[in-house]
Amino acid sequence: MAPKRLQVAAAGLGRMGKRHALNFLNRAPRSQLVAAFSPDPEEIQWAKTHLEPYGVTLYTDYDEMIQQPGLQAVVIGTATSVHAEEAIKAMEKNLHVLCEKPLSTSIAICNDVVNAAKQRPHLKVMCGFSRRFDESYRAAYEKASNGGIGRPTILRSQTCDKHDPSGFFVEYAAWSGGVFVDMAVHDIDLTLWFFGDDAIPKSISAYGVTAVQPDLKKHKDFDNAVGIVEFYNGKIAYYYCSRMMAHGQEDVTEIIGTEGKLSVNLNPQSNLVNHYHAGGITREVPPHYWGRFEQAFVRETNEFVDACLDDTPLPLKLSNAVKAVQIGAWLQEALVSGQSLKFDETGRRVEISKI
Amino acid sequence: MAPKRLQVAAAGLGRMGKRHALNFLNRAPRSQLVAAFSPDPEEIQWAKTHLEPYGVTLYTDYDEMIQQPGLQAVVIGTATSVHAEEAIKAMEKNLHVLCEKPLSTSIAICNDVVNAAKQRPHLKVMCGFSRRFDESYRAAYEKASNGGIGRPTILRSQTCDKHDPSGFFVEYAAWSGGVFVDMAVHDIDLTLWFFGDDAIPKSISAYGVTAVQPDLKKHKDFDNAVGIVEFYNGKIAYYYCSRMMAHGQEDVTEIIGTEGKLSVNLNPQSNLVNHYHAGGITREVPPHYWGRFEQAFVRETNEFVDACLDDTPLPLKLSNAVKAVQIGAWLQEALVSGQSLKFDETGRRVEISKI
Amino acid sequence: MAPKRLQVAAAGLGRMGKRHALNFLNRAPRSQLVAAFSPDPEEIQWAKTHLEPYGVTLYTDYDEMIQQPGLQAVVIGTATSVHAEEAIKAMEKNLHVLCEKPLSTSIAICNDVVNAAKQRPHLKVMCGFSRRFDESYRAAYEKASNGGIGRPTILRSQTCDKHDPSGFFVEYAAWSGGVFVDMAVHDIDLTLWFFGDDAIPKSISAYGVTAVQPDLKKHKDFDNAVGIVEFYNGKIAYYYCSRMMAHGQEDVTEIIGTEGKLSVNLNPQSNLVNHYHAGGITREVPPHYWGRFEQAFVRETNEFVDACLDDTPLPLKLSNAVKAVQIGAWLQEALVSGQSLKFDETGRRVEISKI
Amino acid sequence: MAPKRLQVAAAGLGRMGKRHALNFLNRAPRSQLVAAFSPDPEEIQWAKTHLEPYGVTLYTDYDEMIQQPGLQAVVIGTATSVHAEEAIKAMEKNLHVLCEKPLSTSIAICNDVVNAAKQRPHLKVMCGFSRRFDESYRAAYEKASNGGIGRPTILRSQTCDKHDPSGFFVEYAAWSGGVFVDMAVHDIDLTLWFFGDDAIPKSISAYGVTAVQPDLKKHKDFDNAVGIVEFYNGKIAYYYCSRMMAHGQEDVTEIIGTEGKLSVNLNPQSNLVNHYHAGGITREVPPHYWGRFEQAFVRETNEFVDACLDDTPLPLKLSNAVKAVQIGAWLQEALVSGQSLKFDETGRRVEISKI
Repeated sequence: MAPKRLQVAAAGLGRMGKRHALNFLNRAPRSQLVAAFSPDPEEIQWAKTHLEPYGVTLYTDYDEMIQQPGLQAVVIGTATSVHAEEAIKAMEKNLHVLCEKPLSTSIAICNDVVNAAKQRPHLKVMCGFSRRFDESYRAAYEKASNGGIGRPTILRSQTCDKHDPSGFFVEYAAWSGGVFVDMAVHDIDLTLWFFGDDAIPKSISAYGVTAVQPDLKKHKDFDNAVGIVEFYNGKIAYYYCSRMMAHGQEDVTEIIGTEGKLSVNLNPQSNLVNHYHAGGITREVPPHYWGRFEQAFVRETNEFVDACLDDTPLPLKLSNAVKAVQIGAWLQEALVSGQSLKFDETGRRVEISKI
Repeated sequence: MAPKRLQVAAAGLGRMGKRHALNFLNRAPRSQLVAAFSPDPEEIQWAKTHLEPYGVTLYTDYDEMIQQPGLQAVVIGTATSVHAEEAIKAMEKNLHVLCEKPLSTSIAICNDVVNAAKQRPHLKVMCGFSRRFDESYRAAYEKASNGGIGRPTILRSQTCDKHDPSGFFVEYAAWSGGVFVDMAVHDIDLTLWFFGDDAIPKSISAYGVTAVQPDLKKHKDFDNAVGIVEFYNGKIAYYYCSRMMAHGQEDVTEIIGTEGKLSVNLNPQSNLVNHYHAGGITREVPPHYWGRFEQAFVRETNEFVDACLDDTPLPLKLSNAVKAVQIGAWLQEALVSGQSLKFDETGRRVEISKI
Repeated sequence: MAPKRLQVAAAGLGRMGKRHALNFLNRAPRSQLVAAFSPDPEEIQWAKTHLEPYGVTLYTDYDEMIQQPGLQAVVIGTATSVHAEEAIKAMEKNLHVLCEKPLSTSIAICNDVVNAAKQRPHLKVMCGFSRRFDESYRAAYEKASNGGIGRPTILRSQTCDKHDPSGFFVEYAAWSGGVFVDMAVHDIDLTLWFFGDDAIPKSISAYGVTAVQPDLKKHKDFDNAVGIVEFYNGKIAYYYCSRMMAHGQEDVTEIIGTEGKLSVNLNPQSNLVNHYHAGGITREVPPHYWGRFEQAFVRETNEFVDACLDDTPLPLKLSNAVKAVQIGAWLQEALVSGQSLKFDETGRRVEISKI
Repeated sequence: MAPKRLQVAAAGLGRMGKRHALNFLNRAPRSQLVAAFSPDPEEIQWAKTHLEPYGVTLYTDYDEMIQQPGLQAVVIGTATSVHAEEAIKAMEKNLHVLCEKPLSTSIAICNDVVNAAKQRPHLKVMCGFSRRFDESYRAAYEKASNGGIGRPTILRSQTCDKHDPSGFFVEYAAWSGGVFVDMAVHDIDLTLWFFGDDAIPKSISAYGVTAVQPDLKKHKDFDNAVGIVEFYNGKIAYYYCSRMMAHGQEDVTEIIGTEGKLSVNLNPQSNLVNHYHAGGITREVPPHYWGRFEQAFVRETNEFVDACLDDTPLPLKLSNAVKAVQIGAWLQEALVSGQSLKFDETGRRVEISKI
């Protein structure tokens, strides 16, 4: 008799939602995608072709979907604004949850999800930080863990998107939480991974410009921003986010230790081809995060499924997802206000005037 | 109702056979692995755990397996010596065939397979040359096709394995056909791709040494060999095969045209990590071909399935597989004899004394 | 009759002083080193062997040296504390001056030198910022000037020294002005080059740690520091200085524009060799700045000589040298105080309480 | 009193002759260029501006020049056809000789020079193989000597020039000796360095095409050629020469040993800049050998001067220069004839019919 496969429903079938649904359908042998939900008729239309024929029941109502008998888990790839609500509802139905990041741009709401999960320790609730599943970051982490660079001390990380002249990013900024919440949250998550998730910020500063998308200003956002987070454990992380790259996606991390350094993706590339021509030697760069992280998402899917079926620990803590968003929100606050934020050793905000 | 999936049987469950079976089982959504065969009890044992629970019927007899009702295709990953016989038997049962390379180390037997396939043009019969499915080689081919390097003229290609001190390669040499048939056949296939499969050799020369595996001599094989194939269409390919690499697998190709050059994998890497330490900056290299070509095999599987289900053309001709082995065998002959081989413009061997 | 060669005296024969002296002696065909000064008996001893035999008169008194008849220029490579005094004295003797950076760690004293130079516009007075003479930075600047990256907007630059366990850097910190004045001053100078020397800082923040040299604290210095300078012209520079590199000197700059990016030395290397071994592929890195910038110093020497002999403009303004030190000092102040500094649009310091 | 400087005369003031003259004049502190010869009025005119003012006496007659009193050495950068005659005449005047490669395209004449030098062991007679003085090749050689790659076994080396559409190379082919003598001679010299200069060829094969310069055929030359030299000591070298590169000069060498590999210039670059733009990431490549080897020529000059003044051994044997040309000529013969050449263990040619 065939081993049981995890019965999974996919909520949201937008760009990332589709990818999650297809990963659970096709690239996670131990899972079975049995349901999918979208409020959007176009997305449902897509699902009729790409999901329904393979035994996936389609829903236009989330609450209805999570009542489907036999369901064991939900992958949430809807708009950020409903992540938390849907995650909590799923937990209430005793379902495991893989939620696209962030849980919410509101820390309070994030914490609601964490608390809901704490009350149901038998459920696997994970917020997907894809870089944790990338083989290069994994290899770097393993080297760092084995003492290959001494004590990690400085972390430089950047998330840089290809310039999109369509105006998409301007609209997106209305609800994304800003560049540090939307983009740098990945870099912050890496920081918590390499520095320890108990690292407490001491100060946070950030500065930005709107170089190519001046309309971002109306949402108090920026297309290029630099920030520094100083931690109490003698470590410093600094970040660069940009939506202005001409050449493609360029997500780079360096972890600098007392005895060595690790770089990840310092020389981005689409593939292993170099083109030699009259103007020099050229290699191409993936235009989007999917070109860089596709396999990481596949591994994320499979590791989540394994944890649910085998009741093994998830590779990252849910509380980190909140902490990363919190630090991102503070960076964004520093960015918008032009003020450095200060914290005491317990992690509490200190008023400027008190320093 | 769910779309039909290609009903596939896997023959052979050795190192590569297992990988093929798992790819058809798990990584090709439009295929369904329904049967598997191995004469080896240990492999059958493995299959009881990894295949049988997922609905795969196991066989210890190939002929029996291909009679399983509903079967549509066979993937052959057995020992080279039985590839051809099994491929022909499968065609006789009206099954599509994906056969691991080479069809045979004997050209005559290779031709038998090609002839059998010609008589059944409705069947998809493919000999797997994985590099044809690698995204980097695909990108290089596209650039070359678009005129990015002018007229391809010189091709340099090497297949270099990590040194294996176990003695495996010595035993293997007894029946592998020699380094040019076993290893360079990939480089030759690339040559036919980039130079055109109608390219006719004009002369073939090759030289080798046994530097680290002196016992190879008893099988008239070498652990390092260099060869040149001159073609009548004004093109030259030159090859290097080695089983002596300290650092890992290093398969490199350069295609040099009249107006530019393309390199593939000139700087091999396991992942995107660089380690900076007191001795310099180091990156690692995949130890084996799987580390380099895993995704190419997945794509090979899926494209074969698509061609079978949709009756679309295969991305490479079966006759090329024979031609590549033929050129490999000539290189091996030149290598062992120390003599250059010469050919007339129709491709026929010319005796040395006649030149 | 032979063309006149610039008659040059070298002040200071320490590590860098020796190199300047030898560059003027041997690698600048249009110059003639005729005098050298050091207060240090060991350095004089060295000079007796390496300079005196070639017609260089040695002095243990600076004032005496600059009275040598026929002298036209002085290269100053003494301790930073006497740079300014010696430069001014040289100008008073109507001598051209090439002064090792910085003019002084005191802005007031720097300005004295600039004012002295302004009064003698016929003299060439240059503070050596070697990167301005490096062929890679020159090539990058040319590309940026030709519009190759649109409008430069973000500059990332780091000066990272190999870890020196001898304790040298601790002593050195007593009078170096701190990491941002001593090291980042190069990165700041590059910023003024690529962003325009009229760029006015809007805010300055910096944070640091002492990870491997805790004794630096007694001089209020750090072995790793990160800083951000926000400019009023919509540009941001961010810097990293470290004295902790395991692998060698790693000075990297990225200039990010609205339509492209330039990197300089992103992949440091001692030479063009890669070593493939059982642990991977390794390249080495120069241990010190000389391994990276030797040819830049040679070009600096020759371009200074040309400017003196031909009365042509120097390639960098003396006032920039002050501005770079000023910004470095502000970064250092921000670093030590933990406070961001703010400036109004005229460049004047704004009190925190006024913001 | 100033140390004596080597009194040097420069013969030939063409492209390379000028560079040699200026190196001895300006970049070799222990040498003094005192004389220069050219039969060409334009070159003499150049010398009146660039050499004469610095105390260099000009000659239009070589014999006259070498009689100049006090002369100690000659650097020969004239046309290849007169190298040998001028070198021997210089030795007869008791002058040290640095001769641009090759001594001659005739082996007999090369041997005349070697014999003349043998009779005057107190003279330093060197044929300039610039790569021997390149810091990257030096570093590679040191690593190989220290056992870093085990026993060197396979050497791949290429000399590839940027395509020159002017027709220069066609004219040049009339007397250059062909691509293997003119270009690959450097690669062969490296082979003798890394494999040992006592390595005896066992067989030599070569093939070529004229892809972009069909007129080369009239001089029996090729614009792309590949060759293999098999040696009796269990080593193989293979070469690629091309005059068709779109991107610039690309001289690459790999030395593959039983325990590792060294690559030199596998990723050619003009400088340390990468340009990121909408089409990807591009670096430039030096257009000519001077961009790659300028510093090697400077070191060659200085090491030659040191050997003359200090009576220390030269870093390469004159006899190697002959051997390299001999192997180059054999490769060229194999290339033109389409026949492999065979040699017995003493290095004597074996007739094909005797094999």
